[in-house]
Amino acid sequence: MSNQPNTPLLNTVKRPADLKRFSDAQLRQVADELRAETVSAVSVTGGHLGAGLGVVELTVALHAVFDTPRDKLVWDVGHQCYPHKILTERRERIRTLRMKGGLSGFTKRSESPYDPFGAAHSSTSISAALGFAVARDLGGQPPEGSGDAIAVIGDGSMSAGMAYEAMNNAGHLGKRLFVILNDNEMSIAPPVGAMSSYLSRLYAQNPFQDLKAAAKGAVSLLPEPFREGAKRAKDMLKGMAVGGTLFEELGFSYLGPIDGHDMDQLLPVLRTVKARATGPILIHVLTKKGKGYAPAETARDKGHATAKFDVVTGKQKKSPSNAPSYTSVFAQHLIKQAEADDKVCAVTAAMPDGTGLNLFAERYPSRCFDVGIAEQHGVTFSAALAAGGMKPFCAIYSTFLQRGYDQVVHDVAIQRLPVRFAIDRAGLVGADGATHAGAFDVAYLSNLPGFTVMAAADEAELAHMVATAAAHNDGPIAFRFPRGEGTGVDMPERGTPLEIGKGRMIQEGKGVALLSFGTRLQEVQKAAENLAAKGIVPTIADARFAKPLDRELILQLAADHEALITIEEGAVGGFGSHVAQLLAEEGVFDTGLKYRSMVLPDIFIDQASPADMYAVAGMNAEQIEAKVLNVLGVTSIGEARA
Amino acid sequence: MSNQPNTPLLNTVKRPADLKRFSDAQLRQVADELRAETVSAVSVTGGHLGAGLGVVELTVALHAVFDTPRDKLVWDVGHQCYPHKILTERRERIRTLRMKGGLSGFTKRSESPYDPFGAAHSSTSISAALGFAVARDLGGQPPEGSGDAIAVIGDGSMSAGMAYEAMNNAGHLGKRLFVILNDNEMSIAPPVGAMSSYLSRLYAQNPFQDLKAAAKGAVSLLPEPFREGAKRAKDMLKGMAVGGTLFEELGFSYLGPIDGHDMDQLLPVLRTVKARATGPILIHVLTKKGKGYAPAETARDKGHATAKFDVVTGKQKKSPSNAPSYTSVFAQHLIKQAEADDKVCAVTAAMPDGTGLNLFAERYPSRCFDVGIAEQHGVTFSAALAAGGMKPFCAIYSTFLQRGYDQVVHDVAIQRLPVRFAIDRAGLVGADGATHAGAFDVAYLSNLPGFTVMAAADEAELAHMVATAAAHNDGPIAFRFPRGEGTGVDMPERGTPLEIGKGRMIQEGKGVALLSFGTRLQEVQKAAENLAAKGIVPTIADARFAKPLDRELILQLAADHEALITIEEGAVGGFGSHVAQLLAEEGVFDTGLKYRSMVLPDIFIDQASPADMYAVAGMNAEQIEAKVLNVLGVTSIGEARA
Repeated sequence: MSNQPNTPLLNTVKRPADLKRFSDAQLRQVADELRAETVSAVSVTGGHLGAGLGVVELTVALHAVFDTPRDKLVWDVGHQCYPHKILTERRERIRTLRMKGGLSGFTKRSESPYDPFGAAHSSTSISAALGFAVARDLGGQPPEGSGDAIAVIGDGSMSAGMAYEAMNNAGHLGKRLFVILNDNEMSIAPPVGAMSSYLSRLYAQNPFQDLKAAAKGAVSLLPEPFREGAKRAKDMLKGMAVGGTLFEELGFSYLGPIDGHDMDQLLPVLRTVKARATGPILIHVLTKKGKGYAPAETARDKGHATAKFDVVTGKQKKSPSNAPSYTSVFAQHLIKQAEADDKVCAVTAAMPDGTGLNLFAERYPSRCFDVGIAEQHGVTFSAALAAGGMKPFCAIYSTFLQRGYDQVVHDVAIQRLPVRFAIDRAGLVGADGATHAGAFDVAYLSNLPGFTVMAAADEAELAHMVATAAAHNDGPIAFRFPRGEGTGVDMPERGTPLEIGKGRMIQEGKGVALLSFGTRLQEVQKAAENLAAKGIVPTIADARFAKPLDRELILQLAADHEALITIEEGAVGGFGSHVAQLLAEEGVFDTGLKYRSMVLPDIFIDQASPADMYAVAGMNAEQIEAKVLNVLGVTSIGEARA
Repeated sequence: MSNQPNTPLLNTVKRPADLKRFSDAQLRQVADELRAETVSAVSVTGGHLGAGLGVVELTVALHAVFDTPRDKLVWDVGHQCYPHKILTERRERIRTLRMKGGLSGFTKRSESPYDPFGAAHSSTSISAALGFAVARDLGGQPPEGSGDAIAVIGDGSMSAGMAYEAMNNAGHLGKRLFVILNDNEMSIAPPVGAMSSYLSRLYAQNPFQDLKAAAKGAVSLLPEPFREGAKRAKDMLKGMAVGGTLFEELGFSYLGPIDGHDMDQLLPVLRTVKARATGPILIHVLTKKGKGYAPAETARDKGHATAKFDVVTGKQKKSPSNAPSYTSVFAQHLIKQAEADDKVCAVTAAMPDGTGLNLFAERYPSRCFDVGIAEQHGVTFSAALAAGGMKPFCAIYSTFLQRGYDQVVHDVAIQRLPVRFAIDRAGLVGADGATHAGAFDVAYLSNLPGFTVMAAADEAELAHMVATAAAHNDGPIAFRFPRGEGTGVDMPERGTPLEIGKGRMIQEGKGVALLSFGTRLQEVQKAAENLAAKGIVPTIADARFAKPLDRELILQLAADHEALITIEEGAVGGFGSHVAQLLAEEGVFDTGLKYRSMVLPDIFIDQASPADMYAVAGMNAEQIEAKVLNVLGVTSIGEARA
């Protein structure tokens, strides 16, 4: 571990309470060491780097001032929590971040009492902190178990309606509650939206206060009996409070902005508000994503997410890619559709890079809309674009589309509006773990009347599905595809629209039919190769559509085979359930069919490589092969050939 | 139709364009006549009254000033749209509101080009209007087809994060867009939240402007080259604009508040902004819910929703109830649980009356939280209450819980926190139609690992399920129950916790087993009575749990019967799909089982009585009987007895 930095003071910190004995100067040193340790750890694990570097001082200051875990510290999203994990009894495991069996890349209740509320999706922290504050006041736990509640939320996360809902409720309830607005003017992508402009104006009006002013200003915000200091403090108060009208209108006291890398501002402000606050208070802290590590500071994404890297050079150690990513295939083929049809436009909810729409935006800036972390609005906005004659592609990860589910039902499906949903990160996603799994979309979309739901089996299929979606103007349509690289198949120059509701035969066999929906097809084919060696040649089909089902294909497969097995990268309730419903209603089960449906199991699967996660799920080639053998009642090769 | 009012001027209005020839004085008269016609219509149909009465003048003014349907007028929620429907070619059908085959009680695209975007759930209008504005500027439709976009949104709807997300995006894009904030300080329930207090303060700072001031003030807000008038107007501008900082911070021009019942304020302000606005503008209009009809004005709910009534007295014609409503049973038994356990608390998202939590709040005000129209926040807030040691009951209608789906997955299920979801309005709901159907919750909850999902077969079962949920502290639990009255069964003094994952036998029979989940049990029992006359005695069981399934019961039913039929008030993907998955994995289908799953059909079912809607769904007693006969292959009584 030669790359580990020298951290003499940090080495003496086993838990946050150990920070209490340090002077402010020592806390500054701990922060420096913590930064070095964070860089070192992520260099060997990969992961979210920039966000954590931006909050190193804030992390130290919060733990030095508050009494975690009695005080509930809730990190929004959680990808800035690596320094927090290092300080909270997890330093020994920090080089297992995001690995199988290792630490989660986000906060996680089951991992530590210092993570009172897990996260990964954004903008939940104020709701959570308010819940803790209310539970405390209702005596939900013994007094020794519950103290203050502190949410740390980024400016990007403030664009989500959920954060506003929570502010609105917190302002109304008026309980003592701390919201640290970590304003780095950079969430995952550059920020968008009026709130972002507002925060920028706050800073422009009111650059950093000096230490004493910050401390005295904070004091001045507090109730009369506690106030100390004189005119100078009051003047500073005026300066500091002038900007936060929007938050004050929502019932919060506002304090800031302060320099989030200056411990001489952070410590006295936090100490003061902890000592004196009575109601909800928002503390506006300005930080720099990637702070203190030059390769991150200078990167376009400020080191948001990184592969393993060399600490000295910052050079990332990425494995060479063998095929284009599904994301890039989606983006390229969407651009081709847009070239041919000026009604094609695109919507992302703060994920232009992740969805590939950054490429689309370069080409068609006026037809690409980043609505912020605002899936609810993004979906309904897309619905109205469709109602207004456009052909919107609403590109949202499977797991995040859950945020807009009601809008999918109420504004898109019921009105039968032709919104095209491009659902990236379908299925298990690897290092981001259970919170990012795209497990439920097939189920929650396929039972909506009038919806068309597709899954791509490979990147060429994805190109065809983009074309299919562009051509389909009769109601909503969704196509899902996984994270990562394609399979390396030959790519068409342009996709060709598929016939709606028609699957395709991959291989004719006998005895057992394997009906795949999505990219498990590759594993199905591997399983078939292994089975062939045992004398079993399964029929293989790619369903392409979970809705409408290819009734003819499915009923034929059922009629021609002793066994039919469906497989999909989703939870029960999706493709296989629709197949079962069809088979049941058609009376196919009446006379017997060895039907099985391979779906994601009834557990949340922790992070690992996607391959390892699918092994846990029981859905790799060997497990598919075993399923076939089991269904056919074959226990030996001799039996299979008989 | 003796109660029809005298409406000489309104009688000449076939469509909004007819308003253009009227003087302002005549428009005032049209508004008065429109109010009388609205009261008359709702007196014979029942429905939402107060909201429509509050916007009569606004409706006339908007249609007189703007050019609908070219201009896209989007009413938020839509329960205030009856006067709008009367003016837009639907007066002849207005006395069919909310009836089978009649007009929807909400706006609906398929009903009229004057409804460019349907609604029913709240807070979608700004997103929709922004989508229309953007589509217009992108050339989504020919220029003659798309003009201005106007959202009319209530103050209650502004508490939803979705409205904030849309404002944030609209302020960023800066397109010409009109948002009318219809501030009646009363959504369905009295408003909550800091935004509501903020709006009240705006009014307190700045009571109604007089006509000329309003008009001139409006002018003054507009770009320099267009400004007219002199110092007096500028002074008024100062007065009018002072309050709207919050909206201005989000990039909107703010205008108001103005008196929404004063045509002499409404007309000039709307004319001015239509003539001159260049970017997004929010016009703050104060109205009174129920305005102009004394029985509504004086009602506690301002005539929000009413049965048929006598116009003169206002007395409602409610049919006598035979049994307590499910809602009241839930509330009463939740109070009993709270009496015994001070950790029991409750959360509603702006529906205290609809969920029965108004009763809980009377008894335990400090343990009841109305978070506003904020399901996302409400769910995560509940999750943190649970993490903080409380036992939260989160009471949200099935259809509205869709708004908090990601929070259910990410904050509740993944963290296995014991939030109790009380899901009212499960299944088909009657007059509110497709937008309010509780069709998807069983599917979207039952595939979440660690969730427990129950449905009550009658009101006594509901009491037991409330007790079960209170006692269950190992992960999340949901219980669903329908709108309307119970069945009249004997009620227990207190509910008794059920054994998790265990159903109950209702009747032992042979040949066919009917496995019911929810309140279709009554229809199943009726069907069984009819079948008995034909010599068929089905076994009947109540599953109680969709998750975990009662494996033993289900496998036994399958083993002992030729046919097994499940029935549930939900879409495919739910209970029946989980049963099918179990049967498939256990190999029950291998040797044949006449398995059928009766679920809601793959259509959105328009409003009618619940009984009529279930007939459309194919799920009443006769249809269940027919299903049994069909499955058994029985075509005559003789055959059945053979």
